[in-house]
Amino acid sequence: MPAMPSFTESIEVALDANDLGSARTQLSGLDVDALSEHLDHQSPRTRAVLFRLLPKARALDVFERFDTAVQSELIVELSDDDTASLFDRLPPDERVELIDELPAKVAKRIVQTVPSFSRGVTATMLGYPQDSVGRRMGPEYVHAFPDETVAQALDRVKRLGGQAEEIYTIPVTERSRTLAGLISLRALVLAPEGDPVSAHMIDPVSARVDDEAELAARRLLDEEEISALPIVDTEDRLVGMLGGDDAHRIVEAEDREDAARAGGAEPLSRPYLLTSVLGVARSRVVWLLVLAVSGVLTVNVLDIFQATLEQRVALSLFIPLLTGIGGNTGSQAATTVTRALAMDEAQVRDIGHVAFKEARTGLLLGAILGLLGFAVASIVFGLDMGLVIGITLIGVCTIAATVGGVMPLVAKTIRVDPAVFSTPFISTFCDATGLILYFMVAKLVLGI
Amino acid sequence: MPAMPSFTESIEVALDANDLGSARTQLSGLDVDALSEHLDHQSPRTRAVLFRLLPKARALDVFERFDTAVQSELIVELSDDDTASLFDRLPPDERVELIDELPAKVAKRIVQTVPSFSRGVTATMLGYPQDSVGRRMGPEYVHAFPDETVAQALDRVKRLGGQAEEIYTIPVTERSRTLAGLISLRALVLAPEGDPVSAHMIDPVSARVDDEAELAARRLLDEEEISALPIVDTEDRLVGMLGGDDAHRIVEAEDREDAARAGGAEPLSRPYLLTSVLGVARSRVVWLLVLAVSGVLTVNVLDIFQATLEQRVALSLFIPLLTGIGGNTGSQAATTVTRALAMDEAQVRDIGHVAFKEARTGLLLGAILGLLGFAVASIVFGLDMGLVIGITLIGVCTIAATVGGVMPLVAKTIRVDPAVFSTPFISTFCDATGLILYFMVAKLVLGI
Repeated sequence: MPAMPSFTESIEVALDANDLGSARTQLSGLDVDALSEHLDHQSPRTRAVLFRLLPKARALDVFERFDTAVQSELIVELSDDDTASLFDRLPPDERVELIDELPAKVAKRIVQTVPSFSRGVTATMLGYPQDSVGRRMGPEYVHAFPDETVAQALDRVKRLGGQAEEIYTIPVTERSRTLAGLISLRALVLAPEGDPVSAHMIDPVSARVDDEAELAARRLLDEEEISALPIVDTEDRLVGMLGGDDAHRIVEAEDREDAARAGGAEPLSRPYLLTSVLGVARSRVVWLLVLAVSGVLTVNVLDIFQATLEQRVALSLFIPLLTGIGGNTGSQAATTVTRALAMDEAQVRDIGHVAFKEARTGLLLGAILGLLGFAVASIVFGLDMGLVIGITLIGVCTIAATVGGVMPLVAKTIRVDPAVFSTPFISTFCDATGLILYFMVAKLVLGI
Repeated sequence: MPAMPSFTESIEVALDANDLGSARTQLSGLDVDALSEHLDHQSPRTRAVLFRLLPKARALDVFERFDTAVQSELIVELSDDDTASLFDRLPPDERVELIDELPAKVAKRIVQTVPSFSRGVTATMLGYPQDSVGRRMGPEYVHAFPDETVAQALDRVKRLGGQAEEIYTIPVTERSRTLAGLISLRALVLAPEGDPVSAHMIDPVSARVDDEAELAARRLLDEEEISALPIVDTEDRLVGMLGGDDAHRIVEAEDREDAARAGGAEPLSRPYLLTSVLGVARSRVVWLLVLAVSGVLTVNVLDIFQATLEQRVALSLFIPLLTGIGGNTGSQAATTVTRALAMDEAQVRDIGHVAFKEARTGLLLGAILGLLGFAVASIVFGLDMGLVIGITLIGVCTIAATVGGVMPLVAKTIRVDPAVFSTPFISTFCDATGLILYFMVAKLVLGI
């Protein structure tokens, strides 16, 4: 008995024979999840051909299940008409998010030619700065008034809530659209119907349209009592809501970026196993080259001290130990402070406080490691080498922790991602200064 | 005019004078947020004294605002009676979470003496494995039946929803308590009242009580349509719900841990600026020592090749460059794979796939860096040194990427946190093998 052809094979046969009717029939037998999964594994070309065979409503459902990388691959392949009709049917915030992910040239053409971008809320949202929460909020919401009853508010939610992205946290506004408070759908459902809304609302929390999306998202996720964050304009009038799902996606993307960069790579735009070797290598090569340049600097530093090295070759044995400990101490400090910045637990103005704290921490760690280093090196290589290693370790740890702790704050001040800026800088700085310190101490103690 | 004493000062004066009445009056003038903020900054001793002055209901509100580290400090200071009354009034999931954070001895005494631990759901929850979602779920929920109307279901929510932690996602169960589907409060509010619940419910998603809490939490956060995840027992009967806030806290704690460990430190239990220098140093010292041991290994490796080093001191100039590039390549690979594991994008069974992918990626990166290294080293130190550096870089990158990619999967297999296990191991392994490879290539090419 011959094996049944797999679904992918039989679709391919249909495509090869240019039998679009048969391909369409086969696609209609799949549910939306299976469809998006199936298209996800196709080449961009084939994916676009199959995608165009789907009925409009289904196409939109499938499209919304793709991750942004696949969405933008697809947009690039589709015709202008298909693109326009797709964008017209996306909610405004997804429309803006996707446009931000597309290659600049494609994005520009779409914004200029697709009608939905030049009209209404989408046009307004595109006016907010890149990375601001104004570009990520949902501009459609249902609201309540403080002086109406719970029953009246619940009734408005029932009538208009279908349009809104989020109805679990409802903004309570004055007639002027300024925010007076927030009421949860939970409270509206559980409270006595005749109570005024104001009796069950909580104090308003909000973000400004031009606030950084990441900060607004973290603020929302830190609030236990609300599931969406009101976004207000410069005159404190409500203009949209940031939903919990969107906040979670924003924070997750930032965390993924931070984790990747702390490990010295750019985040992958697709799941790891689906990314090609070339794609993985591309996410790492720039960083590796930057860090290699730092390595070349150490070659130069060592070259200066070559005469010292030739007199006492044992000095070279400790090079990887010292640069390693310096790099680790620096990256520990940088990681802690970067995290504290992201969690809003430390500010740029705390720089003096952070530097002092890290200097003392580094001194303490250096004293512990220095004592150990002194003991081990003295026994094996003699008292003078022990002294060199011990003193160098104290200095290296103190400098590395201080620089490592301060660097993320400097990065933030000059508006660079702390994770991007800190790792190569600290690695370069600690390796080079560590080695200079090492040879200076060696010359002094060993008298060479 | 003398300056007004600050709030903290005047409380201190009252405490020093043993005037508890005045201290109590002063505390009653603060709102709950200000109170918890104020107590947060006190020493554990003073905090406990002041905490005991609060009326019971307020004390509970303040207690729930502390982070877990402060909560456990406080529990240790309070009397058994105070502790028992506090635990009695906490919801079961917070009770279990807090007990898991306390020092083992204190936890054991409390579980044995506080009545609420030996009874009902709390006792059941304590029976689930450490780190399982069964210990983190809320055991109280409100449910709906598939064959009742939307109005009937909404009515039950109105009557019983006050007890449940979560009412935005309502589990729909058969009479046997097996899960039939899920319906959102949004759907219950917006749907026509006479429709059956089954017409608006979505397919059930759930986790098992003994599933890892982190995996269950990520599953919930990845689902866009639900805000709480049903937890079922081994017979598929509903036993509780994991709420979105709890899921977010679980994932955030895991991410903080991963970020800290990727940077070579344990996570801090309190905000950075509130942690003492000693506390910060403690979170880093163990790791630094582990990594220092790896450094000692490199001293030994270099010692073996001391004769070679003495013949050609220029070889020592490239040591930090080579170990640096090896370490970076390894940690890039480890970071990517650790993340893929956490996001459930790769499994232990993919180990062959991962190893092959990383070997090719490492070879590609090694070829790029090797070519550059060859060019630079040839010009400055001659063709033979160029060859040594170029060949070594290809080897180092290939080995480091492969080992770095495979290590997190090995860690997962032997049930150790990939982040804990990978960093020191990769650092040790890459430094040592990199140096051995370097000197072997050098001996071969240079003929020494």
